[in-house]
Amino acid sequence: MTEITSRTNDNVKALCAVTATAASRRSNGVALLETEKLVRDAMQGGADCLQLWLCGEAAERCGDLAVSAEAVGARVFLTVPSVMQKISREDSGTNVLALVRRPQPRQELRTEGLNRILVLENVQDPGNVGTALRSAAAFGFDAVLLSPGCADPFGPKALRASMGAAFRIPVFEQADCVGEVTKLGREGFLTVAAALDRDAVRLDACPAEERVCVAVGSEGRGLTEELISACGRTVFIPISAGTESLNAAAAAAVLMWHYRNNNL
Amino acid sequence: MTEITSRTNDNVKALCAVTATAASRRSNGVALLETEKLVRDAMQGGADCLQLWLCGEAAERCGDLAVSAEAVGARVFLTVPSVMQKISREDSGTNVLALVRRPQPRQELRTEGLNRILVLENVQDPGNVGTALRSAAAFGFDAVLLSPGCADPFGPKALRASMGAAFRIPVFEQADCVGEVTKLGREGFLTVAAALDRDAVRLDACPAEERVCVAVGSEGRGLTEELISACGRTVFIPISAGTESLNAAAAAAVLMWHYRNNNL
Repeated sequence: MTEITSRTNDNVKALCAVTATAASRRSNGVALLETEKLVRDAMQGGADCLQLWLCGEAAERCGDLAVSAEAVGARVFLTVPSVMQKISREDSGTNVLALVRRPQPRQELRTEGLNRILVLENVQDPGNVGTALRSAAAFGFDAVLLSPGCADPFGPKALRASMGAAFRIPVFEQADCVGEVTKLGREGFLTVAAALDRDAVRLDACPAEERVCVAVGSEGRGLTEELISACGRTVFIPISAGTESLNAAAAAAVLMWHYRNNNL
Repeated sequence: MTEITSRTNDNVKALCAVTATAASRRSNGVALLETEKLVRDAMQGGADCLQLWLCGEAAERCGDLAVSAEAVGARVFLTVPSVMQKISREDSGTNVLALVRRPQPRQELRTEGLNRILVLENVQDPGNVGTALRSAAAFGFDAVLLSPGCADPFGPKALRASMGAAFRIPVFEQADCVGEVTKLGREGFLTVAAALDRDAVRLDACPAEERVCVAVGSEGRGLTEELISACGRTVFIPISAGTESLNAAAAAAVLMWHYRNNNL
């Protein structure tokens, strides 16, 4: 353990440089976890810890986290509120923070052993991406594909909403969703587009399926025509006449609940 | 229409004073709507507009909104980005903003004609409160009760998440949830607590009901013992062993989808 009390300490400056922007976090292959709950959830989920920062009373409370972190070769820093405030990217007022390695970007989707896949297309809101990841893990989905237009699943807001799910479920970023969905259809998956299309079927009229891929788009524009065409079926969630739409993460939760793993 | 170009104009100062904090918005009985979509949704939902502020090119694009606003006696201001930035509470960079009257606080819940009621207890996150309101309206729920510990449904974040639903569905703030749920049970409603209790039943083993009240708590602590005891049944949403919980708004969406109005 190393004690740090100065905001201009080299470790502080190095951490700030690496985590300054989404691009720097991505190019350095790291993510910053703020709050004790998130750090615990991610480490339980198998996140690869590089640095653990503890402030004030957290040093005592989180002795177990420090032991786990040091066991995997991470550096543990004990620090003060002014430093914590500087390294926090969210102004979260937290006293526990960790720098972790992002899971290696996954490129090729191999479907052996996979039965339930969520596809998010152009979902820009990081809270919705994180919440959908969390629901996917909860309902027994095996993988999530994110199109290039989606929010960074390892950004601070998405991580907070996903509660560590991004470390527990395989996430394929920058995925060629149209290509992958087409392949999944050929491999026997029911591929479902959530959209208000002319040929759309009510969700509650659709039987559950053993192997399914569910695609959800952004709230504003929905799925692209290309992705809808690539899917075998279009479904809609029936809603009240006076209302326009559901939140994207709420819609994803309802769809995944319908197509959940029945062994939960 | 009035043109305003100065940040120190009296109308600007008055608006800022009235909307400065959650407490001042509540005591003045107003809410501030930021972004064109939100203003349109709320005005369609019947929100009572007091002031409409349009900036730059929005003045032309939103001529119809200006006509509707003036028709109900609202003042319409044309303004410039520096003023817009000052009156925005969210730093949203919007060029359409409206001050509206909050619906009168509802005190007494009369259940004639009501069949589906959502209860939120101590849900502090305004995004979750707003998203749950939006799902409630979508799934044909007739009213929402919020305990004193819930986020303000007319605060900026909740309004953005609810997309105007707060103006379309009756909301009872500062509700005595235990008392109301007890009364609803006596009046023949199935009262459902979402909780991982020893006696909890899987949601997918529960039949749909004609008259139902669904209670959802905060993510961290769940429902209070008092509210669980006041409900006739405790249900849980089965989730994967490795995951701890769902987002509160995602859980509310799944529960309300299960107990939705089947005439949607």
